[in-house]
Amino acid sequence: VATNREQCVELDRRDRLAAAREGFCLPDGIVYLDGNSLGPPPRTVAARLQDLVGREWGQDLIGSWNLHGWIDAPVRIGDKIAQLIGGVPGTVLACDSTSVNLFKLLGAALSLRTDRAVLLSERTNFPTDLYVAEGIARLLGGGRRLELVDWDEIEAAIDGDTAVVLLTHVNYRTGAMYDLAAITARAHAAGALTVWDLAHSAGAMPIDVASAGVDFAVGCGYKYLNGGPGAPAFLYVAPAHQATAHQPLQGWFGHAAPFAFETSYRPAAGIAQFLCGTAPILAMAALECGIDCALDYDLSAVREKSQNLIDLFVERLDARCGAHGLGLVTPRERDKRGSQLCLSHSEGYPVIQALVERGVIGDFRAPDIMRFGFAPLYVRYVDVWDAVEALASILDTRAWDHPRYRRRAAVT
Amino acid sequence: VATNREQCVELDRRDRLAAAREGFCLPDGIVYLDGNSLGPPPRTVAARLQDLVGREWGQDLIGSWNLHGWIDAPVRIGDKIAQLIGGVPGTVLACDSTSVNLFKLLGAALSLRTDRAVLLSERTNFPTDLYVAEGIARLLGGGRRLELVDWDEIEAAIDGDTAVVLLTHVNYRTGAMYDLAAITARAHAAGALTVWDLAHSAGAMPIDVASAGVDFAVGCGYKYLNGGPGAPAFLYVAPAHQATAHQPLQGWFGHAAPFAFETSYRPAAGIAQFLCGTAPILAMAALECGIDCALDYDLSAVREKSQNLIDLFVERLDARCGAHGLGLVTPRERDKRGSQLCLSHSEGYPVIQALVERGVIGDFRAPDIMRFGFAPLYVRYVDVWDAVEALASILDTRAWDHPRYRRRAAVT
Repeated sequence: VATNREQCVELDRRDRLAAAREGFCLPDGIVYLDGNSLGPPPRTVAARLQDLVGREWGQDLIGSWNLHGWIDAPVRIGDKIAQLIGGVPGTVLACDSTSVNLFKLLGAALSLRTDRAVLLSERTNFPTDLYVAEGIARLLGGGRRLELVDWDEIEAAIDGDTAVVLLTHVNYRTGAMYDLAAITARAHAAGALTVWDLAHSAGAMPIDVASAGVDFAVGCGYKYLNGGPGAPAFLYVAPAHQATAHQPLQGWFGHAAPFAFETSYRPAAGIAQFLCGTAPILAMAALECGIDCALDYDLSAVREKSQNLIDLFVERLDARCGAHGLGLVTPRERDKRGSQLCLSHSEGYPVIQALVERGVIGDFRAPDIMRFGFAPLYVRYVDVWDAVEALASILDTRAWDHPRYRRRAAVT
Repeated sequence: VATNREQCVELDRRDRLAAAREGFCLPDGIVYLDGNSLGPPPRTVAARLQDLVGREWGQDLIGSWNLHGWIDAPVRIGDKIAQLIGGVPGTVLACDSTSVNLFKLLGAALSLRTDRAVLLSERTNFPTDLYVAEGIARLLGGGRRLELVDWDEIEAAIDGDTAVVLLTHVNYRTGAMYDLAAITARAHAAGALTVWDLAHSAGAMPIDVASAGVDFAVGCGYKYLNGGPGAPAFLYVAPAHQATAHQPLQGWFGHAAPFAFETSYRPAAGIAQFLCGTAPILAMAALECGIDCALDYDLSAVREKSQNLIDLFVERLDARCGAHGLGLVTPRERDKRGSQLCLSHSEGYPVIQALVERGVIGDFRAPDIMRFGFAPLYVRYVDVWDAVEALASILDTRAWDHPRYRRRAAVT
């Protein structure tokens, strides 16, 4: 669609989402293609935190739990997230980390399928999902076990012994996307439940958990929701399961009457039973700013632009980097991929470091994957152009081949 | 010690901790006796968050995980907390909520005592501790059960079937304090392990978990550590257990190599295996500000002053409020209580609301407990004087007897 940079400038000029970029703080001269790992700060965050610290916490102190809605934050923010993923009010909470929420929901799902042994997932699922599943299977014993199959073997592997199918909607290292509704239907046909991880899709595309019949879902606050580093995560529980499932992380905020201080646990009705401890209000406030940004825009338009950006990236790669042994890991078909593009290259790690040094931020996943995320609220067509030009230059000149690019940091 | 307000002013003038109050933001004219529930903001927090949002998150984006030590925050802040509770470096983490950390540590303790059925606690322990224990017992099955006894029956109740003794060092509704070392020794003599909740003691007094032989402990970041509403909590694991215990919340940050993205869980060596998901960095930064305040002062002096404040409060109560049916719930003996004073009164709820309206902030715990916390870094002797004068006036005039003081808020 664009064969020179001016055409990209023109695409940005005509982009209906162009104004959204003003809602974020981004450093000058940076092409930020890592919003799939950490979204940038919404412009509103700094002022919101100042007000929260200075006025709410500093002036109203403990009274702010009531006065400023701190107590309702997990449900209030959860209801906003519900709008992004197709849940009705009262089905989503913002709370804890993705990993902790996965533990709750796997526990809840297993409480509904006590006669089935298998937690089924796929081998390249994000590791924490697999670790949490392995952990709860071990804790429960009784033959419970995590079984892993290849990406495309999932539907065939679901059978009468499958208690729960645990999958990430969009894969973190390939960018490939599952058909949420089809696999959920397949699981239900076999009497199994689903726990979906929406970490790499919530906020990047329209999702409709209700019409897809999703049983349980979790997702991440700090990627496409732009909630800040380590932002609280979210969880979704279908209305039908709220009265019957039992989640194992019984804490006071999940109690029917937290401030009655009863000795025995009595779960709250509805989604609140999936809370555990006290919510980190400062982090919740930043998350809410991020979600408010997403709510301002039509997710169909966001999805459409993300796919245009990826298509342009692939076109430019074909035109400029064909000779350098890059492998296209992410599907070329729009309906089979999320909002990121993953390339394999034997020197992927130093190539990414060289790109970062030139102001193009992507990231690397061992052993050989370079990832580029396309968050349409702030990524422009010119960013795609400039990123591929930088990559082509680095590959053409072997600029990546320098010892400083091989130094491994704690976080890659 | 003080029979008029001027003497209190003089006590404040001579107080070695008086300068500490400058380290906190407190509204003018407020007597804040609720730091046992939510500490006020350290003066450093607002600027720290501005820098974190504007420069670290906003300028360095994803790179901040390495550049600004985000990745090390749970261990770095944990090591600071270790200085407050007598742990050696590498025994404490700042992470998750108290409830979630309790689940991890109860799971870890039970993994070391698979042949014992009983989790032993006391009836008036903070409810979330009981709920979490009840939840993990139910999840594990196999006859595991939570047994509750009265406060002073604990030592006698520990026997050969006790897997773990779960107690809060200072009780949230009575202010009474257990002898940490004595009960730990008694548990060990019976072959049981201890999980201590230090929510109401960490930061308010010297604690020495190492010399007391404590096995596991958790604590709260938002009370005497002044880490902000819902601040991340902490956990402590004795070095001896780190190589043998297994905690059940297996997440990627507890993995030996989180960024190797291995398919199977392999716990990190040392304290890091007790991490689970990604830490909420904004909330962690505020917590660190709070802990840095506490590190500036000698906890023995803090403890001494807190007891002087409570003694003064009790003296003034005896002098001014004797006729009004107040019950002293907290022990009069210094070595049997924490840093709060709890009074029972049949009209405790409206009395507290009337006090709050007059700028004296305490809180209420059902059914009839009024709580006043004495955080010596910012509570003054004049505050004690003024608080009791306000209370006496409210009781003398029955000012509490107004419908507006009976309206119940979500958080009491």
